[in-house]
Amino acid sequence: MLWLNGRLVAAAEARIDPADRGFLLGDGLFETMRAVDGRIPLLARHLARLRAGAGTLGLPVPLGNAALADAATALLRATGLRDAALRLTLTRGPGPRGLLPPAELTPTLLLAAFSLPSPPPPARAAIVAVTRRNEHSPLSRLKSLGYLDNLLAVRAVREVGADEAILLNTAGRLACAATANLFLIEGDTLLTPPPAEGVLPGITRAIVIEQAARLGVRCLETALPPERLRRADGAFLTSSLVGVRALVAVDGEAVAGAAPHPLAQDLQAAWQAHGCES
Amino acid sequence: MLWLNGRLVAAAEARIDPADRGFLLGDGLFETMRAVDGRIPLLARHLARLRAGAGTLGLPVPLGNAALADAATALLRATGLRDAALRLTLTRGPGPRGLLPPAELTPTLLLAAFSLPSPPPPARAAIVAVTRRNEHSPLSRLKSLGYLDNLLAVRAVREVGADEAILLNTAGRLACAATANLFLIEGDTLLTPPPAEGVLPGITRAIVIEQAARLGVRCLETALPPERLRRADGAFLTSSLVGVRALVAVDGEAVAGAAPHPLAQDLQAAWQAHGCES
Repeated sequence: MLWLNGRLVAAAEARIDPADRGFLLGDGLFETMRAVDGRIPLLARHLARLRAGAGTLGLPVPLGNAALADAATALLRATGLRDAALRLTLTRGPGPRGLLPPAELTPTLLLAAFSLPSPPPPARAAIVAVTRRNEHSPLSRLKSLGYLDNLLAVRAVREVGADEAILLNTAGRLACAATANLFLIEGDTLLTPPPAEGVLPGITRAIVIEQAARLGVRCLETALPPERLRRADGAFLTSSLVGVRALVAVDGEAVAGAAPHPLAQDLQAAWQAHGCES
Repeated sequence: MLWLNGRLVAAAEARIDPADRGFLLGDGLFETMRAVDGRIPLLARHLARLRAGAGTLGLPVPLGNAALADAATALLRATGLRDAALRLTLTRGPGPRGLLPPAELTPTLLLAAFSLPSPPPPARAAIVAVTRRNEHSPLSRLKSLGYLDNLLAVRAVREVGADEAILLNTAGRLACAATANLFLIEGDTLLTPPPAEGVLPGITRAIVIEQAARLGVRCLETALPPERLRRADGAFLTSSLVGVRALVAVDGEAVAGAAPHPLAQDLQAAWQAHGCES
């Protein structure tokens, strides 16, 4: 069961138009959200990011937040999933041949619910050589549909036995993982690259920055050369489905003795408590 | 009428699966080809590029070249179009949630035919500030589905009254237009950025390089700072539907007196003769 353009529909009957610009040109955005016990605690933040991105792209969002929340709730009920990964996909809809959109847009809005993935073990990453994040493009700061660079990155690191890809930006500095943000721990300070480095402003990333402030932990958004990761006292990845995931090895070498840092564990506990936030 | 996964189907009934990775992640490639009098003179070159790109992405091409040619011919007959723009779209097909593809792939292959656009007037371009080509990504050399940077580029230059966008790469050097390759003319020499600069190896670009050799015109593939375009004796764009299009202004200033360079006109004539190539 899916929710597509205003109604619940069986997945086998749901139809995307072959002229949809999301399909033909990657002209759209998405959000992946965690549902906990039938609710989406961080929905408001995800929708705010979606609207900001849609503004950058000149992409209309066809429904208000309350209607989007109702759609998500209806889909969770229809699928029987209470703890779920919910993906919202918004495209500019069908158009004529070529790059330019039609004057009258009929955006496509799709919601799909999936079982939550199992919590993964601590991450063993490799720094990617095959591609780089383009900090010169606004798309590096949006969750746009073009995820092929990320796929190339993950394929490359799996070939060397790693399970997470760390991407550098075109200046050769740390950016993020293929589907997660990156934090380093140096002493009692958290460090993470700012969006200007070619980084999606992740929702869990924002939660971690806020929680750090509450815990009295200093957190700096700053440009970071890759050597800082290898020398760090700890590192972790953040994403909307997994939360805070310790990063214990890079390029086959242990980060800080390969033990998850206690701060990463505290922040994961704080993130899980957000399941109760309304 | 479209050709989708092995059969002709009415556009209104053709269905892309909402789980298609082309739709969700931009995980696919396309080609845009010119049909002349019911034939596609450069089909072999387009299919060779498609297969090279599919190899880079680990994407299977489900049909051989003869079957793809038959599909294109059948679609042209069914649509009644003899002179046409033909778009071939290949995606990795449907998959589960997340970045990684399923073990068993069922790629999606779509062919669509459109009336050829009218030949445009000489181009008046602007150099884009909003985004840059990422020469550090192999995708900058493939016709992958992620065309949103190109759309941002075109939107930006239309706001300043230009009709073509010239993109720089992340090093600040000339790369290409949003949907065309770029050539400069200096004296009796042609210059164009090489693929390593973040440039799609265009089919018409290759034809022009070959024709230049036949005409005894020197052609260099070389890195070019934007100043070279402003000072050039002429410039033109190349693309599969339009061929060779003179570029007569950049950022509101005339290139070489704003008259199409005679060499651009000779090369356009040579490109049109390729309509007769089998």
